[in-house]
This record gives sequence, structure tokens and C-alpha cells, in this order.
Amino acid sequence: MKEVKHVKVYNDMTVDELIKEMREGAGFGARRLSEAVDIYEEMIKDEDATIFLTLAGALVPGGMKKVIIDFIENNYVDVLITTGAMLTHDLIEAFGFKHFHGRANMNDEELQIKGLNRIYNILLPNEAYIGLEKRLEEIFGTMDLKEMSTRAFFYELGKNLENKNSILRAAADNEVPIFCPGISDSVFGYHIWSYSQLHSIPINIFNEHKEIVDIAFESPKKGALICGGGVPKHFVALAMQVTGKGLDYAIQITMDRPEPGGVSGASLNEAVSWNKVDKNARKVDVICDITIALPIILASLLTRCKNHKRIKKKFEFYE
Amino acid sequence: MKEVKHVKVYNDMTVDELIKEMREGAGFGARRLSEAVDIYEEMIKDEDATIFLTLAGALVPGGMKKVIIDFIENNYVDVLITTGAMLTHDLIEAFGFKHFHGRANMNDEELQIKGLNRIYNILLPNEAYIGLEKRLEEIFGTMDLKEMSTRAFFYELGKNLENKNSILRAAADNEVPIFCPGISDSVFGYHIWSYSQLHSIPINIFNEHKEIVDIAFESPKKGALICGGGVPKHFVALAMQVTGKGLDYAIQITMDRPEPGGVSGASLNEAVSWNKVDKNARKVDVICDITIALPIILASLLTRCKNHKRIKKKFEFYE
Amino acid sequence: MKEVKHVKVYNDMTVDELIKEMREGAGFGARRLSEAVDIYEEMIKDEDATIFLTLAGALVPGGMKKVIIDFIENNYVDVLITTGAMLTHDLIEAFGFKHFHGRANMNDEELQIKGLNRIYNILLPNEAYIGLEKRLEEIFGTMDLKEMSTRAFFYELGKNLENKNSILRAAADNEVPIFCPGISDSVFGYHIWSYSQLHSIPINIFNEHKEIVDIAFESPKKGALICGGGVPKHFVALAMQVTGKGLDYAIQITMDRPEPGGVSGASLNEAVSWNKVDKNARKVDVICDITIALPIILASLLTRCKNHKRIKKKFEFYE
Amino acid sequence: MKEVKHVKVYNDMTVDELIKEMREGAGFGARRLSEAVDIYEEMIKDEDATIFLTLAGALVPGGMKKVIIDFIENNYVDVLITTGAMLTHDLIEAFGFKHFHGRANMNDEELQIKGLNRIYNILLPNEAYIGLEKRLEEIFGTMDLKEMSTRAFFYELGKNLENKNSILRAAADNEVPIFCPGISDSVFGYHIWSYSQLHSIPINIFNEHKEIVDIAFESPKKGALICGGGVPKHFVALAMQVTGKGLDYAIQITMDRPEPGGVSGASLNEAVSWNKVDKNARKVDVICDITIALPIILASLLTRCKNHKRIKKKFEFYE
Repeated sequence: MKEVKHVKVYNDMTVDELIKEMREGAGFGARRLSEAVDIYEEMIKDEDATIFLTLAGALVPGGMKKVIIDFIENNYVDVLITTGAMLTHDLIEAFGFKHFHGRANMNDEELQIKGLNRIYNILLPNEAYIGLEKRLEEIFGTMDLKEMSTRAFFYELGKNLENKNSILRAAADNEVPIFCPGISDSVFGYHIWSYSQLHSIPINIFNEHKEIVDIAFESPKKGALICGGGVPKHFVALAMQVTGKGLDYAIQITMDRPEPGGVSGASLNEAVSWNKVDKNARKVDVICDITIALPIILASLLTRCKNHKRIKKKFEFYE
Repeated sequence: MKEVKHVKVYNDMTVDELIKEMREGAGFGARRLSEAVDIYEEMIKDEDATIFLTLAGALVPGGMKKVIIDFIENNYVDVLITTGAMLTHDLIEAFGFKHFHGRANMNDEELQIKGLNRIYNILLPNEAYIGLEKRLEEIFGTMDLKEMSTRAFFYELGKNLENKNSILRAAADNEVPIFCPGISDSVFGYHIWSYSQLHSIPINIFNEHKEIVDIAFESPKKGALICGGGVPKHFVALAMQVTGKGLDYAIQITMDRPEPGGVSGASLNEAVSWNKVDKNARKVDVICDITIALPIILASLLTRCKNHKRIKKKFEFYE
Repeated sequence: MKEVKHVKVYNDMTVDELIKEMREGAGFGARRLSEAVDIYEEMIKDEDATIFLTLAGALVPGGMKKVIIDFIENNYVDVLITTGAMLTHDLIEAFGFKHFHGRANMNDEELQIKGLNRIYNILLPNEAYIGLEKRLEEIFGTMDLKEMSTRAFFYELGKNLENKNSILRAAADNEVPIFCPGISDSVFGYHIWSYSQLHSIPINIFNEHKEIVDIAFESPKKGALICGGGVPKHFVALAMQVTGKGLDYAIQITMDRPEPGGVSGASLNEAVSWNKVDKNARKVDVICDITIALPIILASLLTRCKNHKRIKKKFEFYE
Repeated sequence: MKEVKHVKVYNDMTVDELIKEMREGAGFGARRLSEAVDIYEEMIKDEDATIFLTLAGALVPGGMKKVIIDFIENNYVDVLITTGAMLTHDLIEAFGFKHFHGRANMNDEELQIKGLNRIYNILLPNEAYIGLEKRLEEIFGTMDLKEMSTRAFFYELGKNLENKNSILRAAADNEVPIFCPGISDSVFGYHIWSYSQLHSIPINIFNEHKEIVDIAFESPKKGALICGGGVPKHFVALAMQVTGKGLDYAIQITMDRPEPGGVSGASLNEAVSWNKVDKNARKVDVICDITIALPIILASLLTRCKNHKRIKKKFEFYE
């Protein structure tokens, strides 16, 4: 048995130094956060591993856009799975609109009158949605829209975004496929439908299955960082279930709890019974706000891997 | 100010008697649960109100199937919005497979070897998935599959199920539309894709928007019982946002918390800023396990409304 | 393996009928709530079992006073362990002051100006505290205050309360000892200190140990319903730890979670490693708001045990 | 309105640099964590402010001992309020026993047989408790035990500990008073009782009130970092309530939620209605595992205050 050594903190300490202190120094959440970094580092350095990043929750309003882009641009992720709302918020910012700081206990009736939509302690003005509609209509008009998977559609859209400070654009530039099975459930999805009333947008949502299952089948090893629950978490697990071989590395960050039985709060242990996570996998559940844990993990990884250039997996649909 | 009267309990007390005691008797969660029943009762008795029921989380494994069917068969719901996993579990049981009782701390490696998939304290054998695939292929072969919305597809499927003890069948029999924007993210969705490789299943996922938005536009008043978060919660809110008029009645039951900013834990107050919930709405957040709260709400409503036959809303796509 | 039978709900259903439906019908929280009733029923009918009830959280403001008194008066509890705040709120109401209904999102600055103290969605006027001080000073003057344990002090105080609608009074009337290791941390404790400046109140807080440990030692079997965490939960566990023999029946109701490592959220499984709960114990963790779960459990027990008069354990310090 | 700037992360980034990025960069939990550091920094630099640190939860097993000692030794805290369990764990380590790393899903029956007590993912061998009893008996024999408050007792005990790597010792060396209203509810308290059967330990628990209320009265300004809930949180709030003037700075770190009404999860907003927190206070609720948040806050403060030597408040009882 290894003793708890107690976390030692000093001034000008780097994030990675703190995370390393937590490895043998701390129990509870801190130790798990430290394990998450260790697992991710191993995943990065395992050339066989394909890395999936799932993102749910309002992470763009929450200020995580650059962090997510950094995961992509540093080749720390091969496949992105997210929600329609994430892409909607990303597009809003790509088109020049902003999210703003607010407070959790603002008067929502007054905000409604002012046209400010609240996301906990963040505000998003109505004008962003008006602008989104206009800009999407323009950009859809310039895109080459043929029969395609949603993944291919996001790639085309990403390539057509001028603003490089965007998840969709960074993913396209780096050939990181984006899967979004819940795209229909978003303002973005609503505008796709709206545009499709007069023009053809022949997106086949079900084709995502083939593409992600192919990736899973062809990957000798697989790892995932699961941020939040919902459809993105479920979809990567589904790909594992269908291919009959679970994740070799698995990290989840969530504040949901397991007892009510929903997939969002389900433990990674439970996923072993399904073979969604392999029984020999390195895995850890981090119960933490993603806006706290994710930048910490990234800061630590950037430090540890500064001399290790990971090569991203290539997928045939980009050939 | 009204004083807290303290809940009085007696033997053979009915659920509704307890809920009524909680109205003036209790604070915290009990009072909110009591308010939820009062709001739902008012919603049932308001002839102008269209009622949306959103369902997320593993409620069929959790034993809520009959409760959900009762909501449908008692005309307490006009529109159902759910997840692909919910429909998958419903189909599994419709085809004669079962969920079983387990424990939360079972050994997941052993379960995996035995082919038992764990959902917290519930088990689902692998054979159910094998059976599902076979039966779906058969049933797809008998269906009249033309260009259609997912809602229309679920209606056709529901009509083709022999087993009346099914959410899909009950919804079809009662002409309650089912929306499922995340259908692609499920084993059911995977089998749709799989079947579509050799046969045509021309489902247009984006058409759901038009249908739910039309319903929202045409309803003089709107109410929702939101069970769990995720896509179903977001989709009904989206329909309100797009139509520019929020819910007049809103109840949510969740164990997720608001602080991390995700939609699943977001308060109904926050939804007022978005006009997803009207500022004059009757609304309440119930922080409770759905398997506890939902049967209680139903038991109370059945008692209160036993002499009130609600007439379900009719939608043009059934004509 | 037993199949999940699905909860069947009907009008005028009693609470106990619903709880019985949840036994084989439901998973997740509902099944656990049903198990809690089964375990408590068995505990009541096991003549060897001494029953401990621990109470933390603002249960008097939350409207649970009558429910708690019913547990006492029906002989469902032999030993009560609670917080100083619980006794403070009980005294406030025993002296004729009230708690009032409010809302969770009231303006706290305005409440402060109005002299209304908020406890989530409940309000307590400042005047209650002024009255408490006056009445406690009076009542202390009439009491026979000799060297005693806190348990003995609460018994004397309870006997001196005129209002029968009080936990302290009911416990005294029924010779249910109250332990309150955190008494000092309360307004009540502050007034004890205050009074002791001019008069002698020779309470020995540490004597509680002997008394509860003696009870634990002399009980052939032991069971506990643990409502909330904190000192009350810890103190009953401590008595088990010291006597070297864990609880034979254990039920906890809490909304706290285990991962941060605090005792309040710790699982009953964990308590097995400490021998605070026996490894053969019947035990269940119910993750639920106490104001919802506790009246349900009581309603069910009253129905099941209406023909079973449990005889309370007698303790030597009442002789 | 200030826009959300998105957190920028880079390699070798210090903890403080990350926290500063979160200030304008992030929403949700990250922004609140950043505010916590800003508020604490202001509190340190405000010469009028007396700083209270409350500690609940198993923070010594969780590896936070050095962090807590650093808060004391850097003069970042004037008054410590904690639980009996915290002092018990601190004494166990002061006497040379250790906590060990384990896993959350270990078999608790096997652990019980091996004499290993589990605290979530941390283990504590039974031998530590045997050693504690022996060493406490020895050390009590050497102490000058006269009529005293618990605070004075902890001071005497701390001075008699040889091991400097102890919270009790560091607090004594730095004349930081420790208040522990729940001392009786701990193994440490049990040994005090046990020793008192043959020797006099005339501790007056209620005297803590006078001492903390005096400190509150004499402090021109007051601030608190509240780690976890329970008695420590309640006791500092009580001191404010009694003196009629709330905290000027307030930070709480907790994973408990507010809706069930207990004090541990209660928001700092709610505390304003009670005047436990002043309506003009700078305050923030951080919903996070303490083992993650507390070292981050310390690392950031050490960096920001490396050239600012705070002078600790002096209290008359040390004269």
C-alpha cells in the first residue's frame, strides 16, 4: 500500500507540478484528476491509440473554446463527438458574436425583456441568433451540398468559415471528424431544416454510424476523454458496443451522479459490463466542473508532451 | 406569509393525501413535488393547453414503462419527446425480452463475461440485443417505408408492434406523436442504418422541427413535464424558443445540478430569460430521482382527475 | 434473476401500495426507497433490535416535525441523535413561533432588511430568536440543573415544555434519549452558555459517549435510519466502531455524494469496512430529499404495522 | 457587459496564470474558482480583516494536511474551525501513523477482515486507532489540564506534540485558535471522555462561544473560507449571527447542493438574509471537490502574495 504523502504547494508552481503532487499526495477528487492526466499522457504516447473527445454542456459559453481548439491543434484528439448546441455556440462566435459574463442570480424576467439569454452565469444576446440565421443562410449558399453524412457536412462548413478561432474550422483544418448525432436538436439544426425547405441539404444522419464504427474497427487501440454526458458520451460508447471491443483508455469528467440510472452519470465501471470500456482499460471518473478540470488537464499535458509531437490518425474519408 | 403546517401522516393514507399534506405542510423538495402535482392538474384541466412529456434516462430499465403508458392512455400527454435509448429499451421489452434486478456494486468484469449489461442496479442480457436486431429486421420488412419524418416512422413502427405493453405502441394507438432528435444515437438507430444499407429508409430527421414547431404555433397554451435533461428537454425548449412564446406550465424532475452550466441541470428560471418558459408560467423544479417522483405524480393525478376525462389534442398529420 | 415488473399505479392508491409496487417493479431510487421500508419493517418486528434515528438538516423548517414525533410516539425509534439547529427550531415552534413558506429565489438583501431569515424556500422571522432567548431564560430558571449529560439535560428540558407538539417533549414523554454532540454549535447552545455566565449549567458533553456506548453494548441487535449526514450520522457510527459490532440494519437518506470523501455522503458499503455496519446487515442508501422520503417511509410503516405494537427499549438512566 | 474571452492554456503555465485566465476567460465553475482567489487575495491584503477557515470532510486522509498547515504558516488564517474527525486524523498522523491509497470500489467485507477502514479511495488501518489511544493517554498525562475551553485544550495539546507536521501543532505554534464544537463526536472526543473517567479534564465546550464571539466583535472586518459544511460552517455563521454583523468576505467550497435545505449546501446568498454574510460582502460559492480547489487557491495565493507578509491577528487569550 502506498501512503498518502500530502500535496505540497509552492509559489509559481506550474499546473503540472501541482497535478504531479496530487498523484501520490491526495485522495478523493484530486487524485482522480491527477490520474486523468496520467492516463491521457499515456494515451497520447501510445501510437496505436485513436483518441475520441466527447463534449457536452455549454462549453463555448463557459470559455472552453480555445482549450478545445488546442486539443485539436496539438493532435491530442482524432475524433470529436459533440452536441448541436456546442456547434451552434461555436458558429455564433465564429460569426463575430460574443458570450458575456453575468451572474447566476440575475432576474430572468428582466433579462428576457432585455433580450439576454442566460446560461447559468453567462449571457447570450438575442442578436447573436439573428446574426447566426443570416450568416448560415449565406454560407449554406456557398457550400457544395451533395448527399453526405453529417460528418462530411461539418467538414464542408468548417472549411467555409473564415474565422480560424472556431472549433468547426480547427477540426476541418486538422481533419478531425466531428460527429453530432443530435444535430437536429439545435438552432443550427433548425436552420438546416429551414434552408432545406427551398434548397437541398441531403444529410444522412444515420451514415455517422458507419463512419464511427469503421474508425473503431480499424483502431488497434482506443481511448476517450468524455466531457459531460448525453448523446456524445452515449455515441462513443455505442460505437464500442457495436464493434465488440471496449475503450483501452477512458476518462470522464462529469458532475452528474450515477444513482438515478441515466447514462450521463453512469460510472466507467458500469461501462465495463457492457464492454464499452475494456476490463483491462486504464480508466477514471473525475467528478468536477469541466471548466475547471479540462484546462488543468490541458496545461499539464502541454507541459509533459512539449517534446512529443503526436501524429494524428488519418481517416479514409479525407482522402 | 403562510406558515409551515407540518406533514401529517396516517395509515392507509393515499399518495394523493400525502401530496396534499406536503402542499402547506412541507418545505424543500416535498413542497416542490406537491406543487408539481398541482401544476400538472391545472394543466390537465386547462383545455387550451397542449402537454409535452420529455423523457430521458433509462426509465424503461428503471420500471417506469407502465407509468409512461398510463400518462399516454389517460390523455395526460399530447406529445412525447424522448431518446433513442428509451425507444431501444421499449422495443426490447416489446419483443419479449426483460430487464432484471441487480445491485449497484456488482463486479462488472464478471457481468461482462456473463453477458449481462449493467444500468446502475438493473441488468440487461446481451441476448436482448441479438433478439432486437432480428425482430427489427423482420418488422422493418413489413412496414410501408416512404419519405417521412422520424415521428411518422415511429408511428408506423408502433402500429406494427403486436405487444400492447409498449410505449411505441401506446403512442401510436393514441396518436401521441413521438419525437426523437437523437434517434441516430442508439442501437435502434444503428439498426435503422444497418437496414438502410440494403433497403430504403428515407427518414428525414430535420422534418421533426416543422412538426413540433407547428404544434407549438397552433397551441393556445403549452405545458411540459420534463423528466431528465439531454436532448428531449432541449428539444421542447427549442420549439418554444423558435416560436417566440414560452411554456405556460413547466415542471422538471432532475438530479442534475445547475452550476456546471449544462442544459440538463439548468433551472426553469433560467429558461424564462430565453422565453422558453413564459415569465407568467406556473413552474417548479423537482430535484428527485424520476423513478420516485413520476409514479407519485401519476398516482396523485389519477386520484384527482378520476372524474375528469381530458380530451387529447389532435394533430393534422394523423388525418 | 428477477425481472423488472414495472410499477403499476392506480387511483386512490395508498402510499404503501405504491411502495410495494416499487419493490419488484422499479429500479434505481424507487427500488431503494422500497427496500428502505422493507428493512425498517423488519427492524420494527425484530424484538432484539434497538433503533437509532439520526436527523440532520433543517427538518423542522422543512415540515417534518409531526413525522418525527410520529416515529417517536409509534415506538419506531429508541434513540434519537440530532443537531443543535434541529433542537433550536423545535424549541422555536414549541414556544409558539412559526416557520413560513417562501421561495428559493427571493431577494436576500430585502429579506435581511425585513428580518426574515431564509432556509432555502422557508422563512424564519428574527422575532422567533428574540422569543427563544426570553423563553429559554425563563424555562432554565425552573429546571433542576445538576451535573448531567446533555442527554439528561434535554430530558429535563423536554419535560418542562408545555407544548406537546415538540420533538423534545415527545422524546421526554416517551423516554427516548436525545443525543446531540454538536449542541454547542447552535443558538440553543449559545443560550446555554449565556445562561451559564450567571447560573450553573454543569452539562458534561463527553458523558454522551458512555451513555450511547452502553446502549450499543447492551443491544443484541442494532438498526439505524440515518437522515442526512454530519454529526448525527457520525456519532451513531462512532458508537458502533467503539463497541466493535456494526449495525444489523442500516438505512440512509441523503442527497450528498460519496466521491469528495466526506462522511455525510459516504456509502453504507464503506461503513462495512469500518465495522460500523455489519457485513451481514440489511442496508440501503436512498439518494433522495428527506422531506420526500421520510413521510413516505412513515406512511408505509404505519400501514404495515397497524396491528403490530412495538415495545420500546428501556434504558437504565430513566429508572 | 464583459465578454467571455476563453481560457488560454500554454505549457509550463503556473497555477496562478491559469486562475487569472479563468477570471475573464471562463464561466461556470472556473470563473467562480478564479473569483475565490481574488476575494481571498483582497482579504489577505485588507489589514482590518480577520480570516476564519472552516474545515469539514476527511481532508487529512484526502492529502490536504500540508496545504492547511501552509495556510496557517503563511498567516493566511487567524481562526480555524474544524471537526473532531479532522483533529483525530491529524493526531493519528502526528503520532506516526499513515493513510494509504486505495480504490473506491474495493470489497468492504474483505477490508473489514484485514482491518482497513475505507474513506472513499483512502484506507486507514485499525492499528492507527490503537496507537492513537496509547499515545493520547501518554500525552494527556503530561498536560497541564485545568478548567479551560476546548480552544485552550487544543492549544495545550498542540504545544505538546513533537511532530511539527501537524495541524494542531502548527496552529499552536502560530497562535491560531482552533474551535471544534463537535469534538465530542469523534474518536478523539471518546478518548477525552475515557481519560476523564480517572482524571479530570474540565473542558467547557460552551466557552468556545464567548471566545469566537469576542473575536467577531473585536474584528473591524471579517472574512471566511468555508471548506465543506457541517458544524464548522454553521459555527462561524452563528458567531456572525450573534454579533449582528455578517462576513465582509466569504468563499465556500462544497459539493453539497442547496435544494434539500441543509446548512451544508446552503448558498452564501441565503446567508445574507440571516446577516451571516453582509449584503455588501464579496462572496462566491465554488462547487468543487475541496482536494482540487484548495491547493489551487493556495498555489495562486502564494504566487500573488510572495512579497506581501500578512500580519496575523493577535487574540488576548494567548497573552
